[in-house]
Amino acid sequence: MSTLSPRAGAPRAARRRAAAVGGASVPGPRPVRVALLGCGTVGGGLLTVLERNRADIERKVGRPIDIAHVVVRDAGKPRGPAVPAHLVTTRADQALADPGVDVVVEAMGGTGAALEYILRALRAGKTVVTANKDVMADHGREVWAAAEAGGADVYFEAAVGGGIPIVRALKESLAGNSVRRVAGILNGTTNYMLTRMTRDGSSLEAALAEAQAAGYAEADPSADVDGLDAARKLCILSSIAYSVRCRMADVHVEGIRGVSAADVAYARRMGWTVKLLAISELRDGRVTMRVHPTLVPVAHPLAAVSDAFNAVYVQGDAIGDAMFYGSGAGALPTASAILGDLMDAVRRHGTGVRQTECTCFYRRPFDGIGAVPSRFYVRLLVPDRVGVLAKIAGVFGRSGVSILSVLQGPTLAAPEGPGERSGAAGPVADLIIVTHEVREDRLQRAIAGLRHLEAVAGISAVLRLAPEDL
Amino acid sequence: MSTLSPRAGAPRAARRRAAAVGGASVPGPRPVRVALLGCGTVGGGLLTVLERNRADIERKVGRPIDIAHVVVRDAGKPRGPAVPAHLVTTRADQALADPGVDVVVEAMGGTGAALEYILRALRAGKTVVTANKDVMADHGREVWAAAEAGGADVYFEAAVGGGIPIVRALKESLAGNSVRRVAGILNGTTNYMLTRMTRDGSSLEAALAEAQAAGYAEADPSADVDGLDAARKLCILSSIAYSVRCRMADVHVEGIRGVSAADVAYARRMGWTVKLLAISELRDGRVTMRVHPTLVPVAHPLAAVSDAFNAVYVQGDAIGDAMFYGSGAGALPTASAILGDLMDAVRRHGTGVRQTECTCFYRRPFDGIGAVPSRFYVRLLVPDRVGVLAKIAGVFGRSGVSILSVLQGPTLAAPEGPGERSGAAGPVADLIIVTHEVREDRLQRAIAGLRHLEAVAGISAVLRLAPEDL
Repeated sequence: MSTLSPRAGAPRAARRRAAAVGGASVPGPRPVRVALLGCGTVGGGLLTVLERNRADIERKVGRPIDIAHVVVRDAGKPRGPAVPAHLVTTRADQALADPGVDVVVEAMGGTGAALEYILRALRAGKTVVTANKDVMADHGREVWAAAEAGGADVYFEAAVGGGIPIVRALKESLAGNSVRRVAGILNGTTNYMLTRMTRDGSSLEAALAEAQAAGYAEADPSADVDGLDAARKLCILSSIAYSVRCRMADVHVEGIRGVSAADVAYARRMGWTVKLLAISELRDGRVTMRVHPTLVPVAHPLAAVSDAFNAVYVQGDAIGDAMFYGSGAGALPTASAILGDLMDAVRRHGTGVRQTECTCFYRRPFDGIGAVPSRFYVRLLVPDRVGVLAKIAGVFGRSGVSILSVLQGPTLAAPEGPGERSGAAGPVADLIIVTHEVREDRLQRAIAGLRHLEAVAGISAVLRLAPEDL
Repeated sequence: MSTLSPRAGAPRAARRRAAAVGGASVPGPRPVRVALLGCGTVGGGLLTVLERNRADIERKVGRPIDIAHVVVRDAGKPRGPAVPAHLVTTRADQALADPGVDVVVEAMGGTGAALEYILRALRAGKTVVTANKDVMADHGREVWAAAEAGGADVYFEAAVGGGIPIVRALKESLAGNSVRRVAGILNGTTNYMLTRMTRDGSSLEAALAEAQAAGYAEADPSADVDGLDAARKLCILSSIAYSVRCRMADVHVEGIRGVSAADVAYARRMGWTVKLLAISELRDGRVTMRVHPTLVPVAHPLAAVSDAFNAVYVQGDAIGDAMFYGSGAGALPTASAILGDLMDAVRRHGTGVRQTECTCFYRRPFDGIGAVPSRFYVRLLVPDRVGVLAKIAGVFGRSGVSILSVLQGPTLAAPEGPGERSGAAGPVADLIIVTHEVREDRLQRAIAGLRHLEAVAGISAVLRLAPEDL
């Protein structure tokens, strides 16, 4: 297709370009040609926004952007009006081998074919823009090696936090900082569930059903609910923040299955909101990474992140505290991130100036959760009689855990009805103990001690409070 | 000074570089040389962070950064340990004329000499990084023309929102969006004051005194308190967001002098927090810009922005809602923004690849505040007797203003003691009327009508609620 002869079905940019140069011999700048791999929610969203805002987008980058191939699995599936039907193909090989393709946008997901195509494109010197967190978290090393080999750029803003521009912020805007902590609400499904539990007093099961009905949770919600999705995103962010390769094996991952409506309600009354936080820290040259339910003070900006929104809180030596908030998923927000990357790729294309490359140039030791100091919220089921607290306090004391505050259930009324109950051995009550900051391994020693205590009928919950300096 | 012969007093980077290459003939990449104009809070902060994180910073950008001149007004003034004494000079001319200087960092402030130096540097083809909101808001056209003439880049992340990377987010990450609204808390001083009034019930005067004592407010706080500082920043952000040159003359500016502790307390009870918002919108191709105290729902992320923090809320067609939060001022946060810009400038230096240029390529009509629809909070002082409400409602009705809710003062108890009082003509009370959304000019007509009503003893406050779709 000649870019100078407008015809029915030709992309709008080509038509406009042809109109602009008329029949004269002054061609505009060469268009950048894009192969889109995958045209589901994300790929379709990208084409929708690109078509809608094309005039402004091309004016900003100074040259046309042509979609050259739209690679799909099923060419017969009906697509939206933004998808140019004549470009739809199942031939990924052809698209990747096309020497006219400058940029490959990968919107397939998964680590099978997507990874293979990304590597092939990079080795061939094509810029890659990807929304694939699995590839970036689990195969970062291969991807960067392929980029290096091909002298190509890889962009992945959309892999973390949907439309939130956190990757670029860490790689460029905050690059002069020594970052000491990243704390994120990186999974919209679990944040939606916890919001329902907080606002409506829903149980975890009811909140999950609501999330599924609202289209936020998959039929199999484990990757979200068990914290794995957040952990992968944390790996990606931490790699950039601390200039070190971070792997899933180094993340302590706890999902929200252990969070009950009772704990959400107790926390609320004590001034905290329960959030699934993904936290990484660099301290004395050592890195820790963890995902777990966390009690956040209600006045903290992270506590105001509701429903399916995501946010990333960054603490650095120059910036102090900063937070980036927005939609962590969805067709259009993800398209926003891909477009920002694509526009940068287009601006740089052909100039020989690379985008910021892999910055994992340090090797740093990682510590497990045992070394992490936290304040803890411990909810115990105890016989409602004199002397119990003294025995429990004794166990904490002998483990070197200092108690900050104690609350007895009957004085509270949580929706799920904790408080006074009758056990086999008489009435029982909730006892909530909040500790001073203590290393995790020491707290776990105390918990082990409580298990053998006759004065403890059950350990209902052990949750961590947000770091005091968050 | 040869970059290969280390000597006492030579910058650390030069020493390290020399050490790295030894006496051999393998020079590293040429350093980028920087002239720093101004070494007060901001300039000093920049040197502090640059020295502290120099190893990581230079590794990330791939080449050394040498400070070549530090231009000050008073060379005799004692400076911190991060300021290399042998580079301090009062000779701006010399620094700007130095052909070895690649980047000029302007940290002087004001629109006198600073503007002149910026223009001169750009015309000479030197990259400029500035923290100067006055220059960018009031002289944007000249600055961009000089940049164009010299083929140079101008960076100004630090001019808006201190360390918050909002300029780059709008220019690059969100560039694929059609932005429909920007709503920011862009002034830390007034946000600190409003936080004190909300949390402690302080009066405006007491809050101002606290802000001055805490070092947030100047002796003459007008630029902050009257909203001018926020308005300038709004001009800069709106210019980028809507690709149109925005001028101060097009901003409706109201500061917080009309906000009383009583209104803060009433608003709180009705579920709102008072914030000084700077809002701009693009609707049907027309732009509106305004700065005024605004009632924000307490659950909105902007309501959680406390103390001297700033935040910018952006609404676009792809991203949906996004918010950027952080320190809006201060030596180190501002240094963080300058460093991010400087690092990008260093990466691009010598490549011939420009940063995103001026994108004010549209001419769009601006509307005044009269055309802006809002819900309004109107507090009236009324005689406490039967029939008053009917008369007031009549005035609103005849002006075409629909009433959403009515609250009578005596049922509330605000700290400053609104509520029942005795006037000359008997007891008076606060009456608070909240309207449905209505154009500002129509609301003002109703207010004018109320002034002539015998049933209204005084109009105590007229405040706007945040847009319903914020």
